[in-house]
Amino acid sequence: MSLTATQIRDALIEIVGSDGVVTDTDKMGAWLNEPRKRFHQTAAAVVTPPSVEAVQNVMAWANENHIGIVPQGGNTGLVGAQVPLSGQEVILSLHKLDRIRSIDAGAGVMTAEAGVILENAHKAAEAEGAMFPLWLASQGSARIGGVLSSNAGGVNVLAYGNARELTMGVEAILADGRLYQGLNALKKDNTGYDLKDLLVGAEGTLGIITAASLKLYPLPQDYETAIVNVASPETALELFQLMRERVGSRLNAFELIPWIGLDIQLRHGMLDKDPTASASPWYALIELTRMAGTEPGALQAALEVAFDKTLISDAVMAEALVDRTRMWAFREQMSECQSREGASIKHDVSVPVAAVPALIAEGSAAAEKFAPGIRPVPFGHMGDGNIHFNFSMPVGADPKAFMAEYDEAVHEIIYEVVLKLGGSVSAEHGIGQLKTELLRQVKDPVALEMMRAIKSALDPKGILNPGKLLG
Amino acid sequence: MSLTATQIRDALIEIVGSDGVVTDTDKMGAWLNEPRKRFHQTAAAVVTPPSVEAVQNVMAWANENHIGIVPQGGNTGLVGAQVPLSGQEVILSLHKLDRIRSIDAGAGVMTAEAGVILENAHKAAEAEGAMFPLWLASQGSARIGGVLSSNAGGVNVLAYGNARELTMGVEAILADGRLYQGLNALKKDNTGYDLKDLLVGAEGTLGIITAASLKLYPLPQDYETAIVNVASPETALELFQLMRERVGSRLNAFELIPWIGLDIQLRHGMLDKDPTASASPWYALIELTRMAGTEPGALQAALEVAFDKTLISDAVMAEALVDRTRMWAFREQMSECQSREGASIKHDVSVPVAAVPALIAEGSAAAEKFAPGIRPVPFGHMGDGNIHFNFSMPVGADPKAFMAEYDEAVHEIIYEVVLKLGGSVSAEHGIGQLKTELLRQVKDPVALEMMRAIKSALDPKGILNPGKLLG
Repeated sequence: MSLTATQIRDALIEIVGSDGVVTDTDKMGAWLNEPRKRFHQTAAAVVTPPSVEAVQNVMAWANENHIGIVPQGGNTGLVGAQVPLSGQEVILSLHKLDRIRSIDAGAGVMTAEAGVILENAHKAAEAEGAMFPLWLASQGSARIGGVLSSNAGGVNVLAYGNARELTMGVEAILADGRLYQGLNALKKDNTGYDLKDLLVGAEGTLGIITAASLKLYPLPQDYETAIVNVASPETALELFQLMRERVGSRLNAFELIPWIGLDIQLRHGMLDKDPTASASPWYALIELTRMAGTEPGALQAALEVAFDKTLISDAVMAEALVDRTRMWAFREQMSECQSREGASIKHDVSVPVAAVPALIAEGSAAAEKFAPGIRPVPFGHMGDGNIHFNFSMPVGADPKAFMAEYDEAVHEIIYEVVLKLGGSVSAEHGIGQLKTELLRQVKDPVALEMMRAIKSALDPKGILNPGKLLG
Repeated sequence: MSLTATQIRDALIEIVGSDGVVTDTDKMGAWLNEPRKRFHQTAAAVVTPPSVEAVQNVMAWANENHIGIVPQGGNTGLVGAQVPLSGQEVILSLHKLDRIRSIDAGAGVMTAEAGVILENAHKAAEAEGAMFPLWLASQGSARIGGVLSSNAGGVNVLAYGNARELTMGVEAILADGRLYQGLNALKKDNTGYDLKDLLVGAEGTLGIITAASLKLYPLPQDYETAIVNVASPETALELFQLMRERVGSRLNAFELIPWIGLDIQLRHGMLDKDPTASASPWYALIELTRMAGTEPGALQAALEVAFDKTLISDAVMAEALVDRTRMWAFREQMSECQSREGASIKHDVSVPVAAVPALIAEGSAAAEKFAPGIRPVPFGHMGDGNIHFNFSMPVGADPKAFMAEYDEAVHEIIYEVVLKLGGSVSAEHGIGQLKTELLRQVKDPVALEMMRAIKSALDPKGILNPGKLLG
């Protein structure tokens, strides 16, 4: 039943032509090596279809021959969804489907193919005077298909939602090659089940997204940005609620950063200048959008109220673009800066917004008790309840010995706190192959049964991204 | 295999007690008679479980005995989803599950059971200083379970989204009685398929929603509301885009109303005073939210720009609550006012926002050509591309003869235009039993196959709301 390597190669060449198939192991590196270097599997082949129809033909062939297909976009995922698990799979790269099919800034919609690089989607929108508000650290490489399949988040979720909420419709190829034409641009459509949202975030296990209609927004006239000093996550939460009451949906970002993040970045020369007003145990980076028809000053006024209520002790507002850029660099370098201090243990978790202070307090205390000297570095999207709950090794520790001893155990400690608070063990990054066992342990068993039933119904032979997400 | 009426009654009484079962036809009227009086079927029984566990027990019994179950909330649906199709079904009313389980305005979340009346959800939120921003004409009767199962929209979708976007998680009972515990309050959770959005809008065919965690928003300080005169839907579209550029997400409503709507309401004494500035072929009702921390005046300033660009010729701003109330009454009476002029043919359709002018022009022309003297009354949520495209009979026509001759044919004419423009034949109201045949004709066949596969996977015996949505 199973085809030989040669048969697979020949069949794929027949479908897409010889310039669309890579089987030489040395040349497959760009598709096999993923960002965190955790997964090291090979593939039977890489196929790069030049059209939607070619994707259909590959899938029809794969389904008939029981060949596992791993869809891949920009290969920037952090949980191994986009790389093979068994090594017998064919990687199907969408990178040749890279057209913006249409764009209408006035109507607020852009139809982009799966292979469009996120940054190019931004540029296309901006050229029309509009904005596609999904910003990620990896936007120079991440492609729309992967961004949607992983339901990516980023720094703008608070105001604009994650990839799911920014998508109006998708076109996708099912396991057997059928074309699902759900590429509408409707804000309201109650004609049946929400297939769009099922395909978005399914990590390529239910269908291969080939194009999407995406929401565009008018460009703000301006941003009002500040870094403020807060005494604790509790105070930050009160401040977040105050901001929400005062400016509602204009609140574009509310990011929490601990002092250690500033200390590391300054010590390692990662910032040309301290972006904060003064020393503080915690900082919040707050940003409002200002549209052309609204007067400036809302952030300044809100911070004055926050001072009066003693929610903040000091603050600095961005006066020029260079200030805003530095403030955001401080935030965006939080993940990277930890590598300058040796090994770190990372968690991408969320809890209800009101539980963020408890998460940080209980998680830090439990980890510090278990691993004396470990340095908690919890930071991130407080307004979404999404904390990148990271821990740097103790000063002077041996990185390998630290990870060997503590990595798994600290995961267990943090996930226990997260679950107790009603949280999620994967807020943004997904399950992929990294967290399938964890998912089995922590997810509602009925939810798992429902997911397996849906998977079997739409991909009965189990050829779409086999072993990912549901294991 | 099939149970007798007595067996059904006895089994249900054993599960929920005798005060939870109605089988007397005379007493079932409240559950059988739906708002538009189109469907006239009976039921084997009505069961009113007092707890989630009782719902589970009813479903386990129904699944074992192949009994069709029709879940029902406030019985306000307009497409017959909530009433029986064959007459052999048992109606399962959720009205006894009417607790607000928890509410946290600061965190922005309320957990409400399926039987909570929408208006009571509003009141509970307001009592905590927050807002649940889903407003419907039927909110005094509609219940949360039905609101979510039909993915209801309403007048606030532009700023806050429809029911789906306002729901963070659901608890639901599956066909065989299993309890799906998806009641989280997380803004980000990428741990598997989006089951919440599959259950929301499924019209009770995949599971019975018993509770939901709903998003709450801070109460605006104020609204800025105006009715402006626009020459045409094209101009209204330009004005909508101008408003979006100037105030972004503060735009709370942008409703289009034709002159005939004002004329009818004034002639029949439905308004104490003309809410418009002067006569105009079209009006737009525009509303902005203003949070406490933002200065007033944005609508006034935007309208001045619109005057300068000759997008509007006259305008009146609401100066007091009574003005705002009258303006909204004018909009909300649009559906009802048509009944004062005899029969009318109604369509709940949507198109991409940019296609609204074409929809109105082409749809009106085609209908007027086919039915001379027919009076187009297209109105509604322009900002969502969702037009209630209604037609009043010619002046002096016989209502019955008019409907007999034109109802079906005008539907076909309008749906043809809608589909040509990439639109939806059911923007808000759903499919129910009214539009199953239409859905089969117009929906992407692969989408229908996917929906049927999911239905079979989650409800293999087909007992959940049989015959609805997928036919």
